Amino acid sequence: MQHITASDIDAMEQRYRAHFINGLSGYKSANLIGTQDTQGNTNLAIVSSVFHLGANPPLMGMIVRPHSVPRHTLENLLATGCYSINHVTEAIYQAAHQTSARYPQSTSEFAACGLTPHEIPDFAAPLVQESPIQMGLELVSTQTLVNGTELVIGEIKHIVIQKQAIQSDGFIDIEQLGTVALSSLDSYHSAKRLNRLSYAKPDKTPEAIALNGEPLTD
Amino acid sequence: MQHITASDIDAMEQRYRAHFINGLSGYKSANLIGTQDTQGNTNLAIVSSVFHLGANPPLMGMIVRPHSVPRHTLENLLATGCYSINHVTEAIYQAAHQTSARYPQSTSEFAACGLTPHEIPDFAAPLVQESPIQMGLELVSTQTLVNGTELVIGEIKHIVIQKQAIQSDGFIDIEQLGTVALSSLDSYHSAKRLNRLSYAKPDKTPEAIALNGEPLTD
Repeated sequence: MQHITASDIDAMEQRYRAHFINGLSGYKSANLIGTQDTQGNTNLAIVSSVFHLGANPPLMGMIVRPHSVPRHTLENLLATGCYSINHVTEAIYQAAHQTSARYPQSTSEFAACGLTPHEIPDFAAPLVQESPIQMGLELVSTQTLVNGTELVIGEIKHIVIQKQAIQSDGFIDIEQLGTVALSSLDSYHSAKRLNRLSYAKPDKTPEAIALNGEPLTD
Repeated sequence: MQHITASDIDAMEQRYRAHFINGLSGYKSANLIGTQDTQGNTNLAIVSSVFHLGANPPLMGMIVRPHSVPRHTLENLLATGCYSINHVTEAIYQAAHQTSARYPQSTSEFAACGLTPHEIPDFAAPLVQESPIQMGLELVSTQTLVNGTELVIGEIKHIVIQKQAIQSDGFIDIEQLGTVALSSLDSYHSAKRLNRLSYAKPDKTPEAIALNGEPLTD
């Protein structure tokens, strides 16, 4: 095992450090963020920083770097108060990655990358037609964190989902939907279930449970 | 495709909603958080909310629910100013899951779950010996978010890592290390690389690149 210290990290070449530190948190979600400006011009950006914040109310957080490619995303969601989050799948991960290119603001990443805006009534952000889980969120708050990144919190108002993936206990089989995971800046992964595990209690070891949450029978 | 609205979510049974909403963000990182109190009693908790916040300085965020099992984690890191983040792997995911049982505060989850504290000099939190990526962080800030959860931000000061996983451009092959991903509350997944993709530019389509970031040769 190698022990790397703060001064070792500080001495790393910038690009090397970006790859390295981005790999340390583990697997990340891969989502496309859909927005539009007040003229209705659409924008689409891949982000790896969407995270669950709470189920009731249903809240999601994400981190946006103001000077990075998703800056148009931030401008748009502040202007309209809403945005969409859409799962990246094996079928669209290359197109999703391409949204991170620095297109001019006048170019829609939907058209440039071959993805289709899905409009829903009374909601001022495009969802992604090709995604098996599309969500429409209303902006709750934004705030600048210690390193200048923005924490964006939104509440889920709409979910468009392939319903066969929803199990009887509410669990969603995102493997079945082809959802991918990211590691570091540019590595895309499919996933293979090891197990769902039973609710942990001090006096028993966790057991594998069925996909629908029921005990496994022999 | 099924369209689920805010009122549908509101009407869901509580446990169903927890599984369902937790599945919507996609794959999550799986990490063990190691802390100790001011008497040196160790604590270990699995969290699925660790996320990358920045590479320079190297910052990680995580979300902790004050009234959930990791509340001892929060108390300890506030008392000592430090904590560890350790990758959960295929070899230890059942033990890691078991740390979420509601043990009494006097019980160390290390002993109860069969994991080994790894102490490093001048650092008041235990790392996890069995983990191939162990990190020691100093607390930067905590703040309460809109739904009462706590956002904890820390700076990475120590990394103990199996160095053969580090590629020449800084990319870490976390598949090789057996790192797992989580979905929803209790589903553990191994990962299989689709590809690393080249840096996206407007005038070209992304290409698969080698594990070390170099172009693939035919």
